[in-house]
Amino acid sequence: MTTLKVKEMLDAYPSALGGVDREALTACVEACVSCDQVCTACADACLSEDMVDELATCVRSDLDCADVCGATARVLSRHTGSDAEVTRTMLTACAAACRACGEECAQHTQHDHCQLCAEACRSCEDACEALLAALG
Amino acid sequence: MTTLKVKEMLDAYPSALGGVDREALTACVEACVSCDQVCTACADACLSEDMVDELATCVRSDLDCADVCGATARVLSRHTGSDAEVTRTMLTACAAACRACGEECAQHTQHDHCQLCAEACRSCEDACEALLAALG
Amino acid sequence: MTTLKVKEMLDAYPSALGGVDREALTACVEACVSCDQVCTACADACLSEDMVDELATCVRSDLDCADVCGATARVLSRHTGSDAEVTRTMLTACAAACRACGEECAQHTQHDHCQLCAEACRSCEDACEALLAALG
Amino acid sequence: MTTLKVKEMLDAYPSALGGVDREALTACVEACVSCDQVCTACADACLSEDMVDELATCVRSDLDCADVCGATARVLSRHTGSDAEVTRTMLTACAAACRACGEECAQHTQHDHCQLCAEACRSCEDACEALLAALG
Repeated sequence: MTTLKVKEMLDAYPSALGGVDREALTACVEACVSCDQVCTACADACLSEDMVDELATCVRSDLDCADVCGATARVLSRHTGSDAEVTRTMLTACAAACRACGEECAQHTQHDHCQLCAEACRSCEDACEALLAALG
Repeated sequence: MTTLKVKEMLDAYPSALGGVDREALTACVEACVSCDQVCTACADACLSEDMVDELATCVRSDLDCADVCGATARVLSRHTGSDAEVTRTMLTACAAACRACGEECAQHTQHDHCQLCAEACRSCEDACEALLAALG
Repeated sequence: MTTLKVKEMLDAYPSALGGVDREALTACVEACVSCDQVCTACADACLSEDMVDELATCVRSDLDCADVCGATARVLSRHTGSDAEVTRTMLTACAAACRACGEECAQHTQHDHCQLCAEACRSCEDACEALLAALG
Repeated sequence: MTTLKVKEMLDAYPSALGGVDREALTACVEACVSCDQVCTACADACLSEDMVDELATCVRSDLDCADVCGATARVLSRHTGSDAEVTRTMLTACAAACRACGEECAQHTQHDHCQLCAEACRSCEDACEALLAALG
């Protein structure tokens, strides 16, 4: 299995990281990358369900969350975060997208893909909040 | 020349838009889409300059701004915005990314690509702020 | 209205472009950027239609096409194309994604958003083929 | 540590997958997702090196590879691949982007981030080729 190399890349970084909490940063990048993939797959799975019209809101939440998580993973992977305000506001947006998608998916208890997605969203929301707290 | 079809797609939307300011929404999607492209091209142009080491911060700001603008354009293009908090926090993040990149690029007066990019960032920041204000 | 600045950014590029057809390159970036936005909006509009279950394939084609067009616009906006094989294979993939989505959307004659999307896809497919031909 | 949930999401998919090799598909999505992140981080690390002007080509290869891998992960995560030609051409483009970036990064033996990135690119190229072969 391919495992993410977020920590290894962070350890190979040639500059100082300005006191950022490396564990919180690593965990948040991993959570964003995984949540992007899970939300993309959940949207596609919803489109294969019989009652897709009842899942339209879920598909939209999935797609929004995937795009926001993907952009957040990119911004965070540029570790130097030359502008702390960009990092903070993106983490806030990502936590909001994960909360919205997680709450929507959690309602569809009959679909395993929605349950897995709700978990991924909650983990990512927590990781964003933890990194925001660590950034002070 | 290909022109953007943001307004035409909005007019073809089959549902109500919940009282959103259509002009502000259209203008913001257009600005985000253009700013993503300009920032991507500016980062590449910076990498072709002789003094690329002096432009490393500029490249990073460009890349962050491109990713955030791209994700914001996607979220806004899903017009229904099932969750207003996601839209608002993304617009806030996008305005922050545009402000950071615009201020950085504006300093490089000798590079036309940075001046064009500073303009695109300022326009996009304004469009995000205007849409945020319109959303109330 | 915000217009794209693809040509202006190309003119401000500090290096030679290695004999690429600037008009074909500009037209292709513009078409990719617009098609990404139109496909994203079309997917969302399809999700608002009454018969969304009949449009599941259309939503998927839209989402694939949006992602491929977005990545192609990014690669092409890095004008130097250090590796011609990457540019060529991405243009081939983008033409394929636009063809698939254009053919799917063209079938949904009752939905204006699908007709607009079919047009955007055909224009983008043509622009990709033209640039491929120009690259030799 | 957050691990990717590609396999779990595939197992939760509500439809048949049309005889696709599930292991090859899972491995390829994982490799694309990881390579996107590693290339994004490598580009940023290169921008922090003293001799950034010698790494401009490497940064560009990284950015191209990240964008192509990200789009490929998205297309593959829509498991149904309604259009086999889109899947095949994207896998071909992704293998090309990974090959170009892997060869470029492999030259920078003094930078650990480039060595890690070369590995990620080679793994992703192999995974794309294996899935292409499995698709027949």
